[in-house]
Amino acid sequence: MEYKIANRMSTIQGSIIREIFKSANDPEMISLAGGNPAPETFPSEELADIAYDILKNNPVLSLQYSVTEGYEPLKKKVRQMLKDSEGIDAPQDQVMILSGAQQCMDLCSKILINPGDTIIVEEPSFIGSLNAFRSFEPNMVGVPMDEDGMRMDALRKAIEENNNVKFIYTIPTFQNPSGITMSLERRKELYEIALENQILIIEDNPYAELTFDGSKLPTLKSMDIADIVIYAGSFSKILSPGMRLGFTLAPAEIVAKMTIAKQMSDVHTGILNQLMADGFIERYDIYEYIARARKIYGKKCAHMLKCMEKYFPPEVKYTHPTGGLFIWATMPSGYNSMKVSDICAAAKVAFVPGNAFAVDMNKPSPSFRLNYSSMDYDKIEEGIRILGETLTEIMNVKSKA
Amino acid sequence: MEYKIANRMSTIQGSIIREIFKSANDPEMISLAGGNPAPETFPSEELADIAYDILKNNPVLSLQYSVTEGYEPLKKKVRQMLKDSEGIDAPQDQVMILSGAQQCMDLCSKILINPGDTIIVEEPSFIGSLNAFRSFEPNMVGVPMDEDGMRMDALRKAIEENNNVKFIYTIPTFQNPSGITMSLERRKELYEIALENQILIIEDNPYAELTFDGSKLPTLKSMDIADIVIYAGSFSKILSPGMRLGFTLAPAEIVAKMTIAKQMSDVHTGILNQLMADGFIERYDIYEYIARARKIYGKKCAHMLKCMEKYFPPEVKYTHPTGGLFIWATMPSGYNSMKVSDICAAAKVAFVPGNAFAVDMNKPSPSFRLNYSSMDYDKIEEGIRILGETLTEIMNVKSKA
Repeated sequence: MEYKIANRMSTIQGSIIREIFKSANDPEMISLAGGNPAPETFPSEELADIAYDILKNNPVLSLQYSVTEGYEPLKKKVRQMLKDSEGIDAPQDQVMILSGAQQCMDLCSKILINPGDTIIVEEPSFIGSLNAFRSFEPNMVGVPMDEDGMRMDALRKAIEENNNVKFIYTIPTFQNPSGITMSLERRKELYEIALENQILIIEDNPYAELTFDGSKLPTLKSMDIADIVIYAGSFSKILSPGMRLGFTLAPAEIVAKMTIAKQMSDVHTGILNQLMADGFIERYDIYEYIARARKIYGKKCAHMLKCMEKYFPPEVKYTHPTGGLFIWATMPSGYNSMKVSDICAAAKVAFVPGNAFAVDMNKPSPSFRLNYSSMDYDKIEEGIRILGETLTEIMNVKSKA
Repeated sequence: MEYKIANRMSTIQGSIIREIFKSANDPEMISLAGGNPAPETFPSEELADIAYDILKNNPVLSLQYSVTEGYEPLKKKVRQMLKDSEGIDAPQDQVMILSGAQQCMDLCSKILINPGDTIIVEEPSFIGSLNAFRSFEPNMVGVPMDEDGMRMDALRKAIEENNNVKFIYTIPTFQNPSGITMSLERRKELYEIALENQILIIEDNPYAELTFDGSKLPTLKSMDIADIVIYAGSFSKILSPGMRLGFTLAPAEIVAKMTIAKQMSDVHTGILNQLMADGFIERYDIYEYIARARKIYGKKCAHMLKCMEKYFPPEVKYTHPTGGLFIWATMPSGYNSMKVSDICAAAKVAFVPGNAFAVDMNKPSPSFRLNYSSMDYDKIEEGIRILGETLTEIMNVKSKA
């Protein structure tokens, strides 16, 4: 039988991101490709006790169907965390527990995007979000970034030149893939522009807690006097990604629509997982664990940067992130990171070529993303050594040619 | 700000199904509305031990990101269950673990439906599936049922009269909401018609294991010589719905597209939940637990039927299911079950009026769905008594008028 697939799927190239996740799970691969948190940050002993206690003491609550909006006590704890950590005052009915922050992108796309509507994204940006958007057939417009984040001149131009802009998608802090953090001035300007043009902002903020030195900039949501920001948060980088726990803080009307869409998608987020997160925050000081994770990531990042200094040819430039999970490296223009990726994959080293994060994935990119969180120190060095040697060889060949 | 919601959301009435789930979680409500399994069937002690052991012994596997297709050993166990229980030979790459069977409907809709494409559904049918389909803006055509399931004359007519039929959706066994099981002859005929017209079938089969006397009819998937059936199964009714674990068995090309769509939706199904199901099937004989559940549901169903005999006016007819979770009751034509539902809700008894399961939800229905699995014996009797008295009163008023 010839299967007639819907048109919306034709623009999605599933291969790259699927290969990332597969390679991240291949024990023989040195994967600098994924966004996997460091496994040594998982509080597995604590969670084992909590899961046991919940299932013993609350068997019905933890195994029966639950409500779509999420477990109310966990929503309350999320509100408290948003208050303590980001200075955001979040009403209970504007918080919703999701099956990972990825689901926020899926549900927002579903409830907001008519085919052909414009959405504006930073370029480069997170492939998982871009694909979620793509699958609802928007006119996706990329706005370039500089070291302070999304460029406001380009944003204004994108809004002027495109009708019906539904939302602006940004990861303002420790951006994926670039590691760039949007400056305070830019944040204010972005909010002003969005407000002036009555355009929603989706603020994706999964990495904010992973600041190496503890410093933080105000979130766009904390500036949101007019209910135009949809905020997405995640437990993936502070507790466990395998539990698939994220949340949104959004205008009540948007939450109501997202609830309907979630009902049709997965009914509710696994309730045992919600109870485990709730129990963990109840019993332990989650900020102590976050502080530990910050240290681990800061050290791993410094280690990778040291290795890059040692093994990379000087022509390759890269960011020096102050938090998050990623370093963004760029070869001189004309080089194609996809080719480097192919060579390294054969040598069992994986990373993500830059075109994966572009609006037009078919355009070759000289940039690539490196993750320092999931591998141990030796593997980071080994991976960067192989990658560095490959880069050196390629540059030598080209300079000789 | 005025939020511009996408057109696809305009046809979805979220209120009914959300109220069902909320009422099912309201401790003061006698809810005959939900589809909640009996909590006494949950193997919570066993799952507590398993969760503890997994988190202690496999902390990284159980808390790290995992692959979109699902945990391979669990997929293997699903294949074995499909073989033992349904006589289906399922290749490993055609099985995929989902976040509940609901997700199968969401992903299938996403990868298959272009706006305006025809899909054919039994009428009445499960509201969760209908809403998932609706949200991708198909031309949804209902086919009436009789006591043997979907009527084949009406199905042929629907196919003749509509272009571009993408799939036929059916719950052939212990259908939700009607409790009807499609006869063997009808199954064969349905498969023949679909094959002849090169139309996919989505076979939703979450209740098949809940057969009171152990008897079973062959699934459509077991007849599928031409790879035209997408089969959806669930752990919700045999292990726990709160864990959100379902699966699909589908043609490899469909699974590949669903994998891409799932990646954009929730990345993967909670891995601890997958490991818990895997561990449960590994350590225990799941069929012993299923046999226990069958007995519980058979007794609860018989109890509800006895109460209905006692309290319902003779004008109200109802099905006598041989499995599953639901009884479908029908008042004489002209009566509106939505009105009965409103009166009973005030008396703290909830059930689902029939129009919720129709293609046109705005058309009043004399039918309604009753669930016997989630309440205890006393509450079932109390609920049916209040409902019966309400029905009697309404019939008396009308007959006097």
